[in-house]
Amino acid sequence: MNCVSDRTMEPIKQTIEFIKELDALKSIIRKTLLINRQRHENTAEHSWHSTMLVLTMAQHSNEPIDLLKALKMQLIHDIVEIDAGDTFCYATDQSGKYEKELAAAERIFGLLPDPQGKELLDLWIEFEAGETTESKFCNACDRLIPLLHNHSTEGQTWKENSVTEEMVRQKNQKIDSGSHALWAYTEQLIENAVQAGHLPRS
Amino acid sequence: MNCVSDRTMEPIKQTIEFIKELDALKSIIRKTLLINRQRHENTAEHSWHSTMLVLTMAQHSNEPIDLLKALKMQLIHDIVEIDAGDTFCYATDQSGKYEKELAAAERIFGLLPDPQGKELLDLWIEFEAGETTESKFCNACDRLIPLLHNHSTEGQTWKENSVTEEMVRQKNQKIDSGSHALWAYTEQLIENAVQAGHLPRS
Repeated sequence: MNCVSDRTMEPIKQTIEFIKELDALKSIIRKTLLINRQRHENTAEHSWHSTMLVLTMAQHSNEPIDLLKALKMQLIHDIVEIDAGDTFCYATDQSGKYEKELAAAERIFGLLPDPQGKELLDLWIEFEAGETTESKFCNACDRLIPLLHNHSTEGQTWKENSVTEEMVRQKNQKIDSGSHALWAYTEQLIENAVQAGHLPRS
Repeated sequence: MNCVSDRTMEPIKQTIEFIKELDALKSIIRKTLLINRQRHENTAEHSWHSTMLVLTMAQHSNEPIDLLKALKMQLIHDIVEIDAGDTFCYATDQSGKYEKELAAAERIFGLLPDPQGKELLDLWIEFEAGETTESKFCNACDRLIPLLHNHSTEGQTWKENSVTEEMVRQKNQKIDSGSHALWAYTEQLIENAVQAGHLPRS
C-alpha cells in the first residue's frame, strides 16, 4: 500500500464525488440532432464538441485569448444543466433561467474543494456575463456549433420548432462580438440554408 | 455582409470539416456503463468526462504539469476511435491497435490546416508513448475513470467480461507513475470492490 496522508486523500475523495455527479450531464438531452440524425445530442458530448471548436478556432477570436482559461470555461459552461435542464435557445420564455442555473452552479461547483470550486463557479459566471474576451469567444463557439448541426441535417430542428432566418440571425449575431471571421462564416451558412430551403425567410 | 478575406475563410472551412467529422465520436460505444446504468457510454462524452478529471486533479500529478497541454491531450486522445473503434482495455488481443490508431490520427488530424493538425497529431503520439509528465498524468486519469464507473455500478462490466482483481491491478498500476495519490485512491477503490463482492479475488 502506497502511503498518502488524509490531508491529500480528503480533497481527492471530494473531487471524485464531483466527477461522479458530472455523469448525469450525459443524460441531459438537447434539441440538437447528431449529424447522422440517429438521436438527439446530450450535453456532455456537446461540451466536448464545443470545447474542440474553441481549441481549433482560437486564432480567429477578435482579440487574443487566454486559451487555458477559455478551455476551462467551455468545459464547464453547461454543467448547471444537471439541475436546471437544457433550455432551447429559441424558446420565448427564458424567465428564471439564470437564477435556476446560478443555484445549480453554486451547488455543483460547491462539491469541489476550494479554491477549485470557487474558480469554476467564477468562470461559469464570467461565461454567462459574456463581457470578457474569453467569454465572448466561447459564447461565439457555443452558438455556432448547433448551427452547424442544423445546417448538416437540412434544418430539421429549425423546421420542428418553426425557427426562421430572422430568429437565427438575431440569436446568433453575438458571434460577431467574439469573432468577426466566424460570424462571416455563419452568415454564409445561414444564407446557404435559406437558399436550400432548410430555413424559411422571415 | 462582413468582409473577411479568402485567406481567413479557407482555414475556417477546413477546420469546420474537422469539427463535423468529430461528431462521429458520439456514436463510438464503449464497454463502460453510465453510473445510472441506463446505457453504455460513448467516446465523446468519455472524452469530456476524463478531461474534467484531468482539470480537477492536476495538483495531484507526481510532477507539476503544463495544464493547457494536458487538457488538449486529453480532449483529443480518443479521436482515433472514429476510424479504429474502441478496444476494451482488458481485451487479450491488442495486436495492430497502435498501427490502426496511428493511421486514423494521421487521417483525422490531417483534416485540419497546419500547424494545428501537426500539433494535435504530435500530442496524440505523446499521449500514446506515455513518457512525458503530461502524458503520464493523462493516462492515469484515463485509467481511473472507467474504474470509477465500474465501482459505481457494482462491477457490472468487470463481471460481464470475467475481469479479476489481479487484472485490474495489473492494468491500472500505471496510474502510479502519473500520480501516487490517485493510485493510493485507486487501491482503496479496488479493495473496496473486492470486499463488496463486485470484483473476484484472483
